[in-house]
Amino acid sequence: MSDTSKRGPLAGIRVLDCTGVIVGPMSTLLLAEQGADVIKVEPPEGDLMRKLGGKAPADAPGMSPKFMHFNRNKRSIVLDLKSEEGREVIQRLAETSDVFVSNMRPRALKALGLTAEALLALNPRMVHCTIAGFATGGPYDGAPAYDTIIQGLSGVAACLETVLGEPRFAPFVLTDHIVGIIAAQAICAALVARASTGEGQAIEVPMFENAAAFVLSEHLGQRTFDPQGSFGDPRIMTPDARPMPTKDGYICVSANTDPQARGFFTAIGRPELMEDPRFRNVSARLANVAEYFALRAESLRAKTTAEWVELLRRHDVPAMPYHRLETLLEDPQLRGSGVLTQEEGEEHMLGLRHANRFAGSGLPESRRAPRQGAQTAEILAEIGYGAEDRARLMGDAA
Amino acid sequence: MSDTSKRGPLAGIRVLDCTGVIVGPMSTLLLAEQGADVIKVEPPEGDLMRKLGGKAPADAPGMSPKFMHFNRNKRSIVLDLKSEEGREVIQRLAETSDVFVSNMRPRALKALGLTAEALLALNPRMVHCTIAGFATGGPYDGAPAYDTIIQGLSGVAACLETVLGEPRFAPFVLTDHIVGIIAAQAICAALVARASTGEGQAIEVPMFENAAAFVLSEHLGQRTFDPQGSFGDPRIMTPDARPMPTKDGYICVSANTDPQARGFFTAIGRPELMEDPRFRNVSARLANVAEYFALRAESLRAKTTAEWVELLRRHDVPAMPYHRLETLLEDPQLRGSGVLTQEEGEEHMLGLRHANRFAGSGLPESRRAPRQGAQTAEILAEIGYGAEDRARLMGDAA
Repeated sequence: MSDTSKRGPLAGIRVLDCTGVIVGPMSTLLLAEQGADVIKVEPPEGDLMRKLGGKAPADAPGMSPKFMHFNRNKRSIVLDLKSEEGREVIQRLAETSDVFVSNMRPRALKALGLTAEALLALNPRMVHCTIAGFATGGPYDGAPAYDTIIQGLSGVAACLETVLGEPRFAPFVLTDHIVGIIAAQAICAALVARASTGEGQAIEVPMFENAAAFVLSEHLGQRTFDPQGSFGDPRIMTPDARPMPTKDGYICVSANTDPQARGFFTAIGRPELMEDPRFRNVSARLANVAEYFALRAESLRAKTTAEWVELLRRHDVPAMPYHRLETLLEDPQLRGSGVLTQEEGEEHMLGLRHANRFAGSGLPESRRAPRQGAQTAEILAEIGYGAEDRARLMGDAA
Repeated sequence: MSDTSKRGPLAGIRVLDCTGVIVGPMSTLLLAEQGADVIKVEPPEGDLMRKLGGKAPADAPGMSPKFMHFNRNKRSIVLDLKSEEGREVIQRLAETSDVFVSNMRPRALKALGLTAEALLALNPRMVHCTIAGFATGGPYDGAPAYDTIIQGLSGVAACLETVLGEPRFAPFVLTDHIVGIIAAQAICAALVARASTGEGQAIEVPMFENAAAFVLSEHLGQRTFDPQGSFGDPRIMTPDARPMPTKDGYICVSANTDPQARGFFTAIGRPELMEDPRFRNVSARLANVAEYFALRAESLRAKTTAEWVELLRRHDVPAMPYHRLETLLEDPQLRGSGVLTQEEGEEHMLGLRHANRFAGSGLPESRRAPRQGAQTAEILAEIGYGAEDRARLMGDAA
C-alpha cells in the first residue's frame, strides 16, 4: 500500500550502526524502514542474533527469523574493530555519517575510540547515540543489562506478579524492544535540533530508567500523592480484565460507557439491566465491577466469537476476536495492510513491513535483512578504498 | 541531572494536540519533554483520563495520577470544537503549528474540519499525524480501538496464553503506550523530512498493525520459513524464564555465555559443573535447559538477594534484584537518575522526568501537567484574540 516510488522521510540520512541483539537493531530498524541508509557494522563472528534468533534456513546461515525481522533494509559490513585498519574504516564512515548508534558499554566504546567525544571531534554534525543499560553516573553505571534483568528491576515483572500472584516476565524482550523505539525517537529529535542549529550532539538512552518510567507512569497510582497510597491502575490490575471465553474461542469486548453498556445488554437480550441499580451508570458498574464481569462472562459463552463480534458491532459495542498467532496471520485487516507479506518467488517466506504511512515522503522499497558482510565491498568502495585495500580488509575480517 | 538552562532538541516546534486518554498523550508527552510547545486542546468536559486515571487530590480536581504522568510540560486550552468559534480558534492555531496530532476517528476529524487535507491547505508545512485504531482502507477501518481489544487481536494476549496456559492481557495499556512512542518517532521523522524539503505531510500510525508487527517480529519464529513451523522464541516462551526465589525475595540472573556460566558455578561453590557434559558449553546447556534452570533455582534459595547480587557481580555474572514497585522507588540508581522526583514544597508528590539525555540541547525545565484550561487565556492572546473575545470564548467553552 505504501508508495515505493518515494524514498521515505529519512532519505539522505546515513546511520553508522554498531549495535547488536535487539535494543539497538530495533532502533535502527525504524530508521532504515523510513529511508535512512543504515550501515550495520558486524564483528567477524556476526551479530549474536544471527545465531540466537532461531533456526536459519539451511541455505542461508546466520539468517535466523528474529535476525531477519529486526534487520531488514540495512546494509552489512564486517569489520574487526580491534584491528587498526578496522578502526580506520570506521572513522572514515563516521566522517560521512549523520548518526552513530551503539549499545556497547562505555568501556568498550572507549577502547575502540568510538566515544561521543572522539566521533564528534571528527564530525561535529553527528548525532551520537549510546543505548546504555543504566544512566551514567549512577551506582549501576556500566553493569551489564539484559532484557529479563531490566524487566525484573524496573517493575515489569512486579506488575505481572500483581495480577498473577507470582513474579513473571512479559513474554517479549519487552524493555529491549520498547527502548529501541525510544532511541529511534530520541535520535530523530536530535536530527530536528540539528536542522536548526547545524550541530550534532551526544545522546544517552538508558534502558532501566526508560523502563521504570514506562511502568511508573502507568502504575504509580495513588502513591503519587500519598506515601501510603496504593500502586497500580485498578482497571488493569483486576484479574477479571482478560479475554472472555465464547462458545468456540475468546473475545475482547469493551463496554464501559453508558451507550456501550446499553448496547451490550440489548445484544444479550436483557435490555432491562440498564435500569438495574447495579449497572445503570459508569459509577454503579464500577462499584459492582465483579458482578458486571461475571454477567458478561456468563452471557458470552452462549454464542461463537464470530456471532458475538457481528452482533455487538451492530449495537455499537467495541468487540474483536481474540487471535492466536495462527489466526492473526489470517486476519483480513492485517493481510490487507501490507504489514505482513509473503515474499514473491518464495514457497513460504513471511516478512514484516513498516506499519506507518507517510503520504508525502512515502517509504522506500522493503529489502530483506542482509547476509553477514554482504555490502562490505560496496561500502568500502564508497568511502574510497581501492580493490587491493578492499581485498586485504576483507581477508582480515573474514 | 539534565541541563535545564537549555531548551531541548524540539525547542521551537509547536504541537497542536487534539488527543486524549493514553496513546495520543503519550506521543505528545515525549515531544513536550524534549522542548516542543504542546498545546493540549481539551473539550469542555476535559480529557477523559482526568477522571479515569485514578483519584485526584481534593484540592486539584481533574488531576488524576495517570493524567499527571502523561501530560506534564503541556499547556491546556479548552475549546468547544463543535462551535463555530471553537473551530475558528483551532484553525488559527493550526496556521502557526508545526505538528497536529489526534487519535479521533476519521469521521470525527472530518466533521470538525481537521482532516489532513483541510489543515495542510491552511499550513503546508504542517506534519499532520492521525493515530488510528486500524489502517485506513482495511475491513476494520473506523472501528473503535481500545488497548485491551488491540492486545487481544494483535497477539499480545496470545503470547501470554503460551506461557500461562490461558489468555491474559499484559498488565499495562501496552499497545496504547507503545504506539504513542511510535507516533512520536514518526512525527519527528516527518520533521526531519520537512527540514530538507520544506514540506509537511500527512502521516498515519495505526495501533493494530503496529502492535501486530511488534508481536510478530519477536514471535513469528520458524513459521517465517515454514508453513508448519512453530511460532515463538523458545528462550522467552519457556515457563522457566522467570525471576527466581532467594532466601528473602527474588533475583534476576543471566548466565548464558560460557564465562557467565563459569562465574555462576564458581559463585555457588560448584566450579566442577563447568566440566559436566550437560553444562560445559552454550549448546550443552541449551540441550539440558530444564536441568540447568532447576540447578539455578535450587542453588539460589541458599542466600538472600543482596548476598547473591554482590557475590554474582564479583564473578561477572549479570544479576539484579527483583523489585516490587515499593522497592523500585527506593532503588539508588533510579533515585540518582532524576527520573523519579519528589517535588519541592510538597509533602509527597512523586513526579517522573524524561529519561534520555541530550548533551547539546539539554532538556527544558519539567513542568507539572496543566489544570484543565489553565492556559486558555494565554494561548488565545498569543494568536491575537483581544480581552473581550477571550472572555466570550472562555464563557462559551466553560
